[in-house]
Amino acid sequence: MKYDDTPTVDLDEEPLYGSILVKTLALSIDPYMRIQMRDSNIKTYVPPFIVGEPMAGHGIGVVVRSEHPDFAAGDRVTSGLFPHQEYFVDDLKREYFPTKKVPSDSAIAPSLYLGILGITGATAYTSWKEYARPRKGQTAFVTSAAGGVGSVIVQLAKMDGMKVIASSGSDEKAEFVKELGADISFNYRTTSTEEILQREGPIDLYYDNVGEETLDLALKYASTHANFIMSGMISSYNKPDKSYAFKARTIANMFEIIAKEIRLQGFLFTSLIGRWEMQFFEEIPALIKHGKLKTLEDRSYGLQNIGDALLAVNMGENFGKKVVIVTEE
Amino acid sequence: MKYDDTPTVDLDEEPLYGSILVKTLALSIDPYMRIQMRDSNIKTYVPPFIVGEPMAGHGIGVVVRSEHPDFAAGDRVTSGLFPHQEYFVDDLKREYFPTKKVPSDSAIAPSLYLGILGITGATAYTSWKEYARPRKGQTAFVTSAAGGVGSVIVQLAKMDGMKVIASSGSDEKAEFVKELGADISFNYRTTSTEEILQREGPIDLYYDNVGEETLDLALKYASTHANFIMSGMISSYNKPDKSYAFKARTIANMFEIIAKEIRLQGFLFTSLIGRWEMQFFEEIPALIKHGKLKTLEDRSYGLQNIGDALLAVNMGENFGKKVVIVTEE
Repeated sequence: MKYDDTPTVDLDEEPLYGSILVKTLALSIDPYMRIQMRDSNIKTYVPPFIVGEPMAGHGIGVVVRSEHPDFAAGDRVTSGLFPHQEYFVDDLKREYFPTKKVPSDSAIAPSLYLGILGITGATAYTSWKEYARPRKGQTAFVTSAAGGVGSVIVQLAKMDGMKVIASSGSDEKAEFVKELGADISFNYRTTSTEEILQREGPIDLYYDNVGEETLDLALKYASTHANFIMSGMISSYNKPDKSYAFKARTIANMFEIIAKEIRLQGFLFTSLIGRWEMQFFEEIPALIKHGKLKTLEDRSYGLQNIGDALLAVNMGENFGKKVVIVTEE
Repeated sequence: MKYDDTPTVDLDEEPLYGSILVKTLALSIDPYMRIQMRDSNIKTYVPPFIVGEPMAGHGIGVVVRSEHPDFAAGDRVTSGLFPHQEYFVDDLKREYFPTKKVPSDSAIAPSLYLGILGITGATAYTSWKEYARPRKGQTAFVTSAAGGVGSVIVQLAKMDGMKVIASSGSDEKAEFVKELGADISFNYRTTSTEEILQREGPIDLYYDNVGEETLDLALKYASTHANFIMSGMISSYNKPDKSYAFKARTIANMFEIIAKEIRLQGFLFTSLIGRWEMQFFEEIPALIKHGKLKTLEDRSYGLQNIGDALLAVNMGENFGKKVVIVTEE
């Protein structure tokens, strides 16, 4: 099919019916979008994309025209349903991840609101504030430490004076995590996690993004009264046999929960954000501006490159949060 | 060998060197004593019994004579090292479960200090106070509900207004637990735990004494923000193949910890008793006296029956806390 760039939105005359006209600045590219490209008869937790209509996802943009009292031209807005277009009319009726204004600050790239200032960063920040109880000099172990959540956790743990052991999946990632401040940063594909924990543990705080064998080792090398924050179990998500997903994990060290009086706390971002949102938006942008909190973006440019960007994310080829910059402001 | 009942302690003249002479009232019979009957060259967490010397364990007695300022004749005393004798000199030098006085109250049988007023009851009480956060109308699931810990938890949960689902290992036990107030009491050997939880759940609080398959089901039928108190995993303790013990548990529903934001809290009695001991001894004896807290003892009588009592405990034939009454006071 030929790429059709006929304008679909008339910037000056498009009727708004009390809503806003938005110019897209950046779009978030996430693995789950693949699941939206399916036979629309199959029901799951995300709706299917519709053939002939634009894809959609998390995005950030700027208001071009507004008929709504809460929004004015020039406001930056973000939501969970940005159609993959240069301009669109947002009817402001979305309930889940609704459209909201974010500060326009020339020192903060808009795309950061799709990562460290979005759900990813907020997942890390809110869970850390709610559950970490960090103590100076104690040891934290962080998995997926180069990922969006893990990379923030590593830095928060260092700010709170902890020794940080961090695992990630390549030498390049381990190097990046080292630059974030991790005391011990290793590539779990080439270095034994058990040897690292045996030498550098016991661990007082475990921030889990992976589950399974690594969780098992964390139980084995935990200290008394260790604190486990259960954020993700990515090892379980992409088993080739889907019937096996979330099933039959062998955990050898379950009894350590009792013997070491360990606390495991599962959480979802949605339960915590209400309590921490204000503090999050006060604290994190300031840390970014002052260079005290680093993040990594993997940028593509232009709507025409979204297909390749989505493929890269699904192949695990991105290094940092994948975003497509649609236009500079 | 002929039973030798020659007195070994002279009640009037035995020198005390600043310690106390104790008359044994009751002895606790526990499974771990079997482990003390072994080749003394094998090291483990309890010392071996010595051939030719009396066995020893938790007991309660009354002071006959005292040369120590903290103790007087008539005081009731308990410790973790009562030799299996009718009388003995306690040098008061024990560090682990040391000798301590307990109130002499004619309404409280001394043997209760070996069970509901001892470690068993305190394990239940302290963990409930520290971690249960019970809410009226919420649902608790208690395993080993006829056991020393479980039977107290069932009653504390009912006092706090919860709906209680309770599992135990025989019809007779299930009947006893029903009498303790459990709303749903079932024999897990003949009734499907999964069917019960599916019908009566979801569960807001899980008090785990067994682990493994039952823990897995509890994860599956937990409610959002469920609270799991991890007290024991008896399923793991007596595997025929010892190399397998504490190893390779298959837990299918680990991801529910995150999806349902579950908290699992392991604990050991020794970490909690300091904070709760005073309140425990104020509250629990009063509840027993007023008939509001029930407990079950399986009594044998006389030192000569200790062998049979220990065999019964190791065969799982006792129903309630096994004690040997050495003499009525």
